[in-house]
Amino acid sequence: MKVSILSIGDELLIGQITNTNAAWIGAEFSAAGIEVVEQLTVGDDARAIGEALEHCRARSEVVIVTGGLGPTHDDVTVEAVAARLGLSLTLDRDWLSRMEQYFKSLGRGMPPGNEKQAMLPEGAERIDNDCGTAPGAWIESAGFIIALTPGVPYEMQSMLKRVILPRLAARVKGVARVQKTIYTTGVGESALAAKCEQLDPPLSSQLTENLKLAWLPSPLGVRLRLTASAPTEAQAVAALSRFEAHLLKAAAPYVFGEAPGTGEVLLEAVVGEMLRAGKLTVAVAESCTGGLAGSRLTNIPGSSSYFVGGIIAYSNDVKTSTLGVSAEVLTKFGAVSEECARAMAEGAREMFKADIGLAVTGIAGPEGGSPEKPVGLVWIALAGASGTIARKFLFERDRARNRERAAQAALEMLRRRLLKA
Amino acid sequence: MKVSILSIGDELLIGQITNTNAAWIGAEFSAAGIEVVEQLTVGDDARAIGEALEHCRARSEVVIVTGGLGPTHDDVTVEAVAARLGLSLTLDRDWLSRMEQYFKSLGRGMPPGNEKQAMLPEGAERIDNDCGTAPGAWIESAGFIIALTPGVPYEMQSMLKRVILPRLAARVKGVARVQKTIYTTGVGESALAAKCEQLDPPLSSQLTENLKLAWLPSPLGVRLRLTASAPTEAQAVAALSRFEAHLLKAAAPYVFGEAPGTGEVLLEAVVGEMLRAGKLTVAVAESCTGGLAGSRLTNIPGSSSYFVGGIIAYSNDVKTSTLGVSAEVLTKFGAVSEECARAMAEGAREMFKADIGLAVTGIAGPEGGSPEKPVGLVWIALAGASGTIARKFLFERDRARNRERAAQAALEMLRRRLLKA
Repeated sequence: MKVSILSIGDELLIGQITNTNAAWIGAEFSAAGIEVVEQLTVGDDARAIGEALEHCRARSEVVIVTGGLGPTHDDVTVEAVAARLGLSLTLDRDWLSRMEQYFKSLGRGMPPGNEKQAMLPEGAERIDNDCGTAPGAWIESAGFIIALTPGVPYEMQSMLKRVILPRLAARVKGVARVQKTIYTTGVGESALAAKCEQLDPPLSSQLTENLKLAWLPSPLGVRLRLTASAPTEAQAVAALSRFEAHLLKAAAPYVFGEAPGTGEVLLEAVVGEMLRAGKLTVAVAESCTGGLAGSRLTNIPGSSSYFVGGIIAYSNDVKTSTLGVSAEVLTKFGAVSEECARAMAEGAREMFKADIGLAVTGIAGPEGGSPEKPVGLVWIALAGASGTIARKFLFERDRARNRERAAQAALEMLRRRLLKA
Repeated sequence: MKVSILSIGDELLIGQITNTNAAWIGAEFSAAGIEVVEQLTVGDDARAIGEALEHCRARSEVVIVTGGLGPTHDDVTVEAVAARLGLSLTLDRDWLSRMEQYFKSLGRGMPPGNEKQAMLPEGAERIDNDCGTAPGAWIESAGFIIALTPGVPYEMQSMLKRVILPRLAARVKGVARVQKTIYTTGVGESALAAKCEQLDPPLSSQLTENLKLAWLPSPLGVRLRLTASAPTEAQAVAALSRFEAHLLKAAAPYVFGEAPGTGEVLLEAVVGEMLRAGKLTVAVAESCTGGLAGSRLTNIPGSSSYFVGGIIAYSNDVKTSTLGVSAEVLTKFGAVSEECARAMAEGAREMFKADIGLAVTGIAGPEGGSPEKPVGLVWIALAGASGTIARKFLFERDRARNRERAAQAALEMLRRRLLKA
């Protein structure tokens, strides 16, 4: 079964609202094993709605239409859909009286505009709205299913979960679909892809119509989304597992987590769980990240059981006065150096009496670079009971991304150390 | 001029990613007076891309295509577009060598997959990517303009602002349109709207087809986007100014900045400029925000001239050992109290020898609340030469939003203090 999503509203086209409805519907359908083939968005315009409907009919058996069911003059979805399908509109007296009662319960009369919300295309089945006055509609026309819902997210979501999705899922049979998302960091998309192609056999040679791999890069890392389809769920799971095992031969060192479906995994949550399990505490010393690493670690509820505190040591004076970085290190090697990062990590560990001290110092940019120490240069150090390690990174030119990537790299260094603990 | 937006990527269809690109492009075009008539999203599928392109060509003179320019096998946008237009692909040797140099500067060879990113449709003009390896392309084919950009938001945004939008804007003429965005914080959307309606005349009564006001709420504040259209630019500017002056009678205390068009204003940049102008320095002491306030302040290039450093005082021990919060304050009033916030702010000011100490302590949630001190309770204090002030906030139940709102409120408290300095 192929489904299209048609979103209606001028506010979407001018970017006043981001279309979170389409993403939400896509995720729900994907989880139910129903394929969304296209999303379309048009304005509150009867002709554009009609043409979009034709476009969807040519590519899918179902279209979910959201938006344009309100009481005002610019809400034209019902009229436009009915006109395109050659259906007249009929008054749903039951819904009209329910609306009238609703307004009466609020102590006022029904505004005249709302009456049109009780008009539905002939033959359409009403989908009740349990939190608003605009009903949805289920229309079947020559094998094409059109489900109309309001654009208000919770009203749409309620109709989709209560009525639309269960009905469609009941009509789908045969194919089981399993999906998983693998989270990596510390390796670029192209470098990881190259490693996967050096496998024997190359990873891409294993892909088929029923086994798909999507690469989803971001400044913080590359997510890999695996999808397997098969006649039974057991077969799909087995195919996914075989493929994943092969993929991990190349990707394992960079993988910090995985989740079923399109679930999210946060590196700070993974690291937090490892610290909790090892009964270890951590403190941070941050220069160029200015608190970002601490902020990431404390994103997680309950992080107070392993995160003690941190120093944002932005100026050299602070590096010396609070963390005990010696004036000699600062003059001889500079604030962005292996020596300074090590001293900061050790200083934080000592000052906060933590098991692990984690330090970041670098040149976030756009100013402050030199030929020897360019913008994007970051030193990260980790001090623990078994000694101190430090690593150099060369990120990019953008300040915000350098800071984000430095905080992520610090958390990843912590994760790798904890793996060995 | 009518424009369509075609977004490409399986991850959009299955809802793993919300299509913020389409909204961003829509807002930019809207600000430039260019009409977006449709948004389409299809998967990484050459046939679907080709058909979507036809659909756009029938409805608009320009299509902005985002996504599918990466180095991996599932990136098929360039091939699909070229095939549909009947164009062959040619190697852009200049871009290839630039990519090779880029990878060399990182100390490694170019992965083989990246080579395809130097393949462009014949006759296409390359659009440089200043922060990634995927170039964009500008193609004109029988009066139809196709602009290809990567799906990575900042890469797309850079190409759109540098090249695509200026070129298209130069082709549009007729009505002058002026737009401005006003940034507020510390007041909710409904409360601000009510204040605007209490004006004489009520603000909404001033709106017309040629004078529009959009309310854009977020957890950090409400943005107000004003748009005026008129036969000449001078008339549009005058209409906008009159309306803004009226609006400010209600909104002024909450306004921290404004920008032409849909430009961004960051509270940390406004505060940073005030600190710099006043030759003042600031240090932070953060509990529930865990470094977020410091991270916000150091977002800004050159912040080292006014931001000295900070303490992430997550545990009570750290509040005492580093900031000198007395054990008595902690036992008698607790860590989330006016007394503790004041002691933290004063401690940070002293420890870092800063002109101003700014402290945040609160219960971010989801655990840790009580009837007297519920989740969302936050105390913020500011210590300066003229004394210490503190203010209580009650935010909401969501941990992430509580932290974001607390950091924002701290910066706003700093801004208001600096206004009086």
